[in-house]
Amino acid sequence: MRGIRTDLAAEARDLWRESAGETSALPGVEARQDTENGFPVETIRILDERGEQALGKPRGTYVTLELEPLLRREAGAFRRGAGVVAARLRALLGLGEGEGVLVAGLGNRAMTPDVLGPMTLEHMLATRHLVSALPETFGGLRPVSLLETGVLGTTGLESSELIRAVVQRLRPKAVVAIDALASRRLDRVCRTLQLSDTGIAPGSGVGNSRPELSRSSLGVPVVAVGIPTVVDAATLAADLTARSGLGERPPEDFASASEGLMVTPREIDARMRELSRLLGYGLNLALQEGLTLEDITALMG
Amino acid sequence: MRGIRTDLAAEARDLWRESAGETSALPGVEARQDTENGFPVETIRILDERGEQALGKPRGTYVTLELEPLLRREAGAFRRGAGVVAARLRALLGLGEGEGVLVAGLGNRAMTPDVLGPMTLEHMLATRHLVSALPETFGGLRPVSLLETGVLGTTGLESSELIRAVVQRLRPKAVVAIDALASRRLDRVCRTLQLSDTGIAPGSGVGNSRPELSRSSLGVPVVAVGIPTVVDAATLAADLTARSGLGERPPEDFASASEGLMVTPREIDARMRELSRLLGYGLNLALQEGLTLEDITALMG
Amino acid sequence: MRGIRTDLAAEARDLWRESAGETSALPGVEARQDTENGFPVETIRILDERGEQALGKPRGTYVTLELEPLLRREAGAFRRGAGVVAARLRALLGLGEGEGVLVAGLGNRAMTPDVLGPMTLEHMLATRHLVSALPETFGGLRPVSLLETGVLGTTGLESSELIRAVVQRLRPKAVVAIDALASRRLDRVCRTLQLSDTGIAPGSGVGNSRPELSRSSLGVPVVAVGIPTVVDAATLAADLTARSGLGERPPEDFASASEGLMVTPREIDARMRELSRLLGYGLNLALQEGLTLEDITALMG
Amino acid sequence: MRGIRTDLAAEARDLWRESAGETSALPGVEARQDTENGFPVETIRILDERGEQALGKPRGTYVTLELEPLLRREAGAFRRGAGVVAARLRALLGLGEGEGVLVAGLGNRAMTPDVLGPMTLEHMLATRHLVSALPETFGGLRPVSLLETGVLGTTGLESSELIRAVVQRLRPKAVVAIDALASRRLDRVCRTLQLSDTGIAPGSGVGNSRPELSRSSLGVPVVAVGIPTVVDAATLAADLTARSGLGERPPEDFASASEGLMVTPREIDARMRELSRLLGYGLNLALQEGLTLEDITALMG
Repeated sequence: MRGIRTDLAAEARDLWRESAGETSALPGVEARQDTENGFPVETIRILDERGEQALGKPRGTYVTLELEPLLRREAGAFRRGAGVVAARLRALLGLGEGEGVLVAGLGNRAMTPDVLGPMTLEHMLATRHLVSALPETFGGLRPVSLLETGVLGTTGLESSELIRAVVQRLRPKAVVAIDALASRRLDRVCRTLQLSDTGIAPGSGVGNSRPELSRSSLGVPVVAVGIPTVVDAATLAADLTARSGLGERPPEDFASASEGLMVTPREIDARMRELSRLLGYGLNLALQEGLTLEDITALMG
Repeated sequence: MRGIRTDLAAEARDLWRESAGETSALPGVEARQDTENGFPVETIRILDERGEQALGKPRGTYVTLELEPLLRREAGAFRRGAGVVAARLRALLGLGEGEGVLVAGLGNRAMTPDVLGPMTLEHMLATRHLVSALPETFGGLRPVSLLETGVLGTTGLESSELIRAVVQRLRPKAVVAIDALASRRLDRVCRTLQLSDTGIAPGSGVGNSRPELSRSSLGVPVVAVGIPTVVDAATLAADLTARSGLGERPPEDFASASEGLMVTPREIDARMRELSRLLGYGLNLALQEGLTLEDITALMG
Repeated sequence: MRGIRTDLAAEARDLWRESAGETSALPGVEARQDTENGFPVETIRILDERGEQALGKPRGTYVTLELEPLLRREAGAFRRGAGVVAARLRALLGLGEGEGVLVAGLGNRAMTPDVLGPMTLEHMLATRHLVSALPETFGGLRPVSLLETGVLGTTGLESSELIRAVVQRLRPKAVVAIDALASRRLDRVCRTLQLSDTGIAPGSGVGNSRPELSRSSLGVPVVAVGIPTVVDAATLAADLTARSGLGERPPEDFASASEGLMVTPREIDARMRELSRLLGYGLNLALQEGLTLEDITALMG
Repeated sequence: MRGIRTDLAAEARDLWRESAGETSALPGVEARQDTENGFPVETIRILDERGEQALGKPRGTYVTLELEPLLRREAGAFRRGAGVVAARLRALLGLGEGEGVLVAGLGNRAMTPDVLGPMTLEHMLATRHLVSALPETFGGLRPVSLLETGVLGTTGLESSELIRAVVQRLRPKAVVAIDALASRRLDRVCRTLQLSDTGIAPGSGVGNSRPELSRSSLGVPVVAVGIPTVVDAATLAADLTARSGLGERPPEDFASASEGLMVTPREIDARMRELSRLLGYGLNLALQEGLTLEDITALMG
């Protein structure tokens, strides 16, 4: 379907079904649903080229966590959600003890729905310098470095170039890249979290274009972590028009007026604070296996 | 038309025309178009009860300024635009020399598209204390006080209650109320500025409800100044559906998913900085007739 | 001692002793030391005019809490400290059930060591609107309104004028005024918290001058809450010179160079965040007797 | 003199004179005073090892600009000051046409007096991506990249490591490093600007320690740009005590209480905004020879 843009594998799968028919078998793709700590989790595996073409995404594993329990403010939802994020991330990363990680926060601090990456870093523990300076005290920690990449327009430097430069120097065993995503559907915005072991494909993200970040470009595994924070106004219109049975394209004047606009929650500033905290704590738990939520809070100072 | 929400008199007039037919005469309403300093300006006067009912707004004068020259970054557009805002505001306020004014910035600092009021105050000169402490030096200035009202949820206090309390104590000759507005049409968002001498009606604004601020509630004239910064996602859907010829209502599932969402420019943070500066300087020029843009910049420190 | 400026009654008492001799009895003043929840607490009562003259402060009760356990990050220090603040505030306020309170945050958001008042409000529950809109649901809460006063230079309005206007309209049973303080001694900065039932005297605070806020000016009891966040560079020099046995005045060139300078912790931004949170939670606990720390966290959203 | 810490060559020279006597010749050091665009400028050249030992700084050129005309808000001071910064920087950099530059902003965004580096970057044009993507349009610009290094405690990465990694990848012809400095004297804080072609020596800056950034560590010339924003409270005490004729050390209890404290202007937040703007515009003018102040303002958007 033209004009529809999504960074979520689960949405790409739904789009395929809408055009191919609900009952068709999707070749080269496996999916399963679970509930973990009370959170609905879907795991989609794109197995081969057929799956890649059907969903328009590279092969690999995509984990989608629905955040409803957190939004409903269920008791213990933060702790439970951070636990699921941690467990799934650990599985995707598959790191050995003490292997170093570089965590990159992508996106634009000056644009609220794009602030997820930089703001998540504020909730994370940088430990690389501690481990190397005081190995007796901090030897139990995994060495973690944090990098806020900024955006091309204000740095003159592609995020991917900066990350590559740092990877070449620090030689981490894996990279985690955090970024805000675009979604197709309103009811996913700020309500879904996606983890994948495929890195970040060119052209995703909230800003106009993101460069590729993948094992092939960086030489180490790249796990991408993201939350959809906007729907393109143009995507919304295309979707709405299609669902209204009017055909594939929204009215011409609408399409031009929607340029440069996005749909986002009224409470986007508050949502970004809440979600970046969940991500940050989930990442800390994943990377530092010996620490509890309380330890992390104490260490954050 | 159900589900369409707008704070702009010009849009209310367009909506009336869409349902009554382009050629119908609109009773009780006068309108004229001008170009001032290169900016398109429309003046709508609601003259009587017929006009009030047709447009759903109280009688009075509504001035709409289109901001295209500023957005196209035309040479001198900031200075010219601030000049138009100042001239029109002065005409609506009709103040005598040295008469004091209270400027109230409404809205929520923690919600980007609602930050217009508080952020505009950051570009304004507070002079009341200077005029009263050093009348020889500052006697040429109009006494101006600035009040950031905050929002009910974080203060426990209606903006209107706070403004009334301050008006009763300071006894200004007029109140200027600055607030972000909701628009119906995407192509108006962050591109239009409205001034009116009718105050603010209940239920407008970006937040859920704004209290009435008017001459009848405050006892002094109230000039409202605003810029549309969002379109309700629900309004967008209703508008799009209607224009598609599908009837009045968008699909049911869409209506529920769009709850709590808004459409706003990707660059909303940058737009708010730019537009609040235009408003602030326009207001300063309107209130301090003896000062130039350069004087104001120097006094802002 | 000339040139020494302090907002702390405990420091004023120490200064008196330094000039009068350690063993002299201080007339019209009572003091006692306690430890509560592990925090050292001193209570000074200025009983009559002799005490007022000796200490240069109005009669009333001054409670000083030393924050060492918090700074050492002792286990449970936040909870224990907030409990002591709450218990002492409650005793100073002496409110009946359901009696309304106005909490005013004084100071300048644009000046880090002066941000204590505004930042504390960010950690407080505004409840007045809830209690009046939904008395069945929220009837158990005390109606609390929050007011950020801003500063004269940017509003044109004295904090005291604004507070008086609001008090006249809302008729609360008491006012709590939060403000950053100046201390004389480096080892008190960001390490001491003072509560008093005397309101705020003219000329205290971090900014140049604060207006009086007291029962006599507002018509209701005023409890002041503050933390010293700076030492005047001039005070520091006077103090250091005096203690060096060099006489009362620092070198002339030093006095002029120290104008407009202050001594403050390197980590002042982090300290302000931590201390405003302690104050905010302590105040919430004091005002809402039925709530726990966990309730407050949940309600803050 | 023990306990005195300064990053300014002009202060190091003054300290040498204080101990050696005003009339002594300082070997291996040349100095001259000028006035440029109304700003007093001093140029100190450390020529050889004798000079290095006397002043405790590496050989090279140190330019000190006194900012009084800016602080007195003289007419045109911003434009004149930015012009002097630009001319002196250009002379120190000695770049050929179109040669690329990496500008690094050092320091901690979460600590006001240390924010000079990151905040200056906000006033600078990143052009590298424009020059390479649209050489016909932007070929007249010098390719400039901007890098905010963050601080070790929050990134796990030394600023110098990050800069080295980026230099190895981008191969700029020079690095400009911006950092807040520590001064010895109160009357220099936020009133002096230093440029030097020696890079940054270990242990300078506002934070505890800065790593070396120099031609020998990076392989390209490094020009350091800084403004003193604090005096150590301990330095202040040592200085004051010395000048009082009391000997070299302040009272013991004072020394311990002053740990972790700094002396800084009350208006430090406003000063940082003003000074970072001056630096940013001066740097832009230095690097982009074809642009005027007005061009830069227009391009900053």
